[in-house]
Amino acid sequence: MDEQYMRQALHIAQYAAGRTSPNPVVGAVLVRNGRVVGQGWHCQAGAPHAEINALKQAGELARGATIYVTLEPCSHHGKTGPCTEALIRAGVSKAVVAMTDPNPVVAGQGLDKLRAAGIEVVEGVLAAEAAKINEVFIKWITCRFPFVALKTAMTLDGKIATCQGNSQWITNAASRRRVHEYRNIYDAIMVGIGTVLADNPALTTRLPEDSRNPLRVIVDSQARTPLSAQVVRDQLAPTIIAVTAQAPAEKVEALRAAGVEVLTVAAKDGRVNLRELLKILGARCITSVLAEGGATLNAAMINSNLVDKVYWFIAPKFVGGCLAPGPIGGAGVNLIDEGYSVEDISSEILAGDILISGYLRNREGRDVYRTCGRTGESEINCTRREIGPPDHCGPRNHV
Amino acid sequence: MDEQYMRQALHIAQYAAGRTSPNPVVGAVLVRNGRVVGQGWHCQAGAPHAEINALKQAGELARGATIYVTLEPCSHHGKTGPCTEALIRAGVSKAVVAMTDPNPVVAGQGLDKLRAAGIEVVEGVLAAEAAKINEVFIKWITCRFPFVALKTAMTLDGKIATCQGNSQWITNAASRRRVHEYRNIYDAIMVGIGTVLADNPALTTRLPEDSRNPLRVIVDSQARTPLSAQVVRDQLAPTIIAVTAQAPAEKVEALRAAGVEVLTVAAKDGRVNLRELLKILGARCITSVLAEGGATLNAAMINSNLVDKVYWFIAPKFVGGCLAPGPIGGAGVNLIDEGYSVEDISSEILAGDILISGYLRNREGRDVYRTCGRTGESEINCTRREIGPPDHCGPRNHV
Repeated sequence: MDEQYMRQALHIAQYAAGRTSPNPVVGAVLVRNGRVVGQGWHCQAGAPHAEINALKQAGELARGATIYVTLEPCSHHGKTGPCTEALIRAGVSKAVVAMTDPNPVVAGQGLDKLRAAGIEVVEGVLAAEAAKINEVFIKWITCRFPFVALKTAMTLDGKIATCQGNSQWITNAASRRRVHEYRNIYDAIMVGIGTVLADNPALTTRLPEDSRNPLRVIVDSQARTPLSAQVVRDQLAPTIIAVTAQAPAEKVEALRAAGVEVLTVAAKDGRVNLRELLKILGARCITSVLAEGGATLNAAMINSNLVDKVYWFIAPKFVGGCLAPGPIGGAGVNLIDEGYSVEDISSEILAGDILISGYLRNREGRDVYRTCGRTGESEINCTRREIGPPDHCGPRNHV
Repeated sequence: MDEQYMRQALHIAQYAAGRTSPNPVVGAVLVRNGRVVGQGWHCQAGAPHAEINALKQAGELARGATIYVTLEPCSHHGKTGPCTEALIRAGVSKAVVAMTDPNPVVAGQGLDKLRAAGIEVVEGVLAAEAAKINEVFIKWITCRFPFVALKTAMTLDGKIATCQGNSQWITNAASRRRVHEYRNIYDAIMVGIGTVLADNPALTTRLPEDSRNPLRVIVDSQARTPLSAQVVRDQLAPTIIAVTAQAPAEKVEALRAAGVEVLTVAAKDGRVNLRELLKILGARCITSVLAEGGATLNAAMINSNLVDKVYWFIAPKFVGGCLAPGPIGGAGVNLIDEGYSVEDISSEILAGDILISGYLRNREGRDVYRTCGRTGESEINCTRREIGPPDHCGPRNHV
């Protein structure tokens, strides 16, 4: 029974997938005498936590109830009051918690407070599932670094374009829709200047339902982005152009004058140091980045060990050709055994296309959920977005 | 209920997968008063048909029973007597048949005979499933041409080797075992001379259980196969070296003297005409060919529209590199829309590797089961193998 209610809590948590950043998604279900008397989820940073929403729905029925919550209730005074105090006050008698909060300022203290108040606490129910729905948050809160997913689309014979450079369309409508669903939940989207020059993409989220555009980040060492590029001109989402100090000053000024942010990042081998760029984004509370680059950016990201997850869209087509480009360029490794391993693979058929998802094996000692260990740093002050009341807090479609 | 018994018949039919060539696999289940009173499958060409084995098991209990059989019972005098007569004689009262026999010498006549004898006939129960387990037979019996599957192994970034040419091992042990399971059921295995020179493979079936080696076919236009090659030397399976008339006579003679068959095939652009080669194999009752070539043979097979099915093994690794080879070489197509489509895709995870299977969209008007229409030709006289009593007729592991 514990698992059944926890599954429900995990389910409703994801109603807000992509909307709670930089907070985790959280779901809570209150059960009294075998009946659900309240449920809630966290809608948006700054809005009430899941537990508070569930308590509100239950009212007096919360007394003596069991709360199922996907993440340890907070015990600190953040933007909203501590949930532990609210649970104690409401007279909840038992708390079943999927996982402790990886946030160093919570880190088990919430459970301690509940226990101290005489509430029975059960930990670890569906812990792996709970970690999975917050893979972005766990990485960011412990590493202060964005969770990075790399997306590519290739033919079954491993080509991202024909030998003549033709690449539209490799994947089908179902796959392209899925990409927009990812854009809808990632905080930022990143491409290289090559993609901007070749395709002039908008990099916006185009879903018929509730859509939110990610921050657009263009890796453009020499500030070659044309002023006529959609990402400069359309004003549909904020855009950051990441350049090096070597970028021509007049190009940088012109881009700034056109209304985009130009960020000068340390160089590595004459190009934008991607790790530095991501670190800056992480410090700005960008918790997740979807990299949709071409072969050059993909190779640079993978070779720099910056990729956590891959979304690999494969169209069931053969284009052939020794000279047709593959998804990962660069020099490549010399031996198969030196290759980068992808783990925890899953595959899905999307109207004939195949989507393979997996996680890059970590070469830097982080564990499977990409935590960096608890850093113990003080709470991050997120200046990224204005926090206001949620404008939309109903269930959303989610991936 | 019909479907349940038919599923059982389909299941036992596949006990003999890869052992009945050039015959189809067939399973039969006899049911009387809701009880299975006999079942049988076809073990090997020349051995009794499935219906006969089932009747034998049922004995007198066959009288008034219903037979579920995956393929229309034969009505002609082949190597064994017609099954229709045996069913009539045994007093079976009803026949449920998944599909009619695509063999032009049967083609519905069997069902007509049963009906004429007053047996109730139901057709088409699980017809698609029945066609699937005999995809090889259906192609061959109607086209007189082998069913061709192309197998490749690549990394997730579409490479069959690193830029340095290293390729061992791309896939894991589970994938390699699966390849041996395919070798165990395909009549022949085909590679190009490039693979022989680079890897010197044995091309045998290496399974701990019941294994059968396929015929080995080397596409070697100039007869460059070394006498020291395993396929020449090991005598573990018959080998055909397919050359053109331009191959040096002394090389051809030396290979023949070493005990392999050298087959001179018409040339196309100076190389072995693959369609001609496959036609010769088909006429010799090679019903199926597993092509395990490299990028060059793969491109030639696909560009010649010779491939029915693909087994695409993908290892969850990235090796990268603009110059690392992909699975399909050649010049490639110019536009994505000119690519070859793969249909009826399925995917499977093999201990972390991904296996994608599918069917090449037919560009020559054959239907999904690769029939060529009923040719009406007289029965093929198969000289390929000595037909004797089955040496092993129990259930086998099958893919």
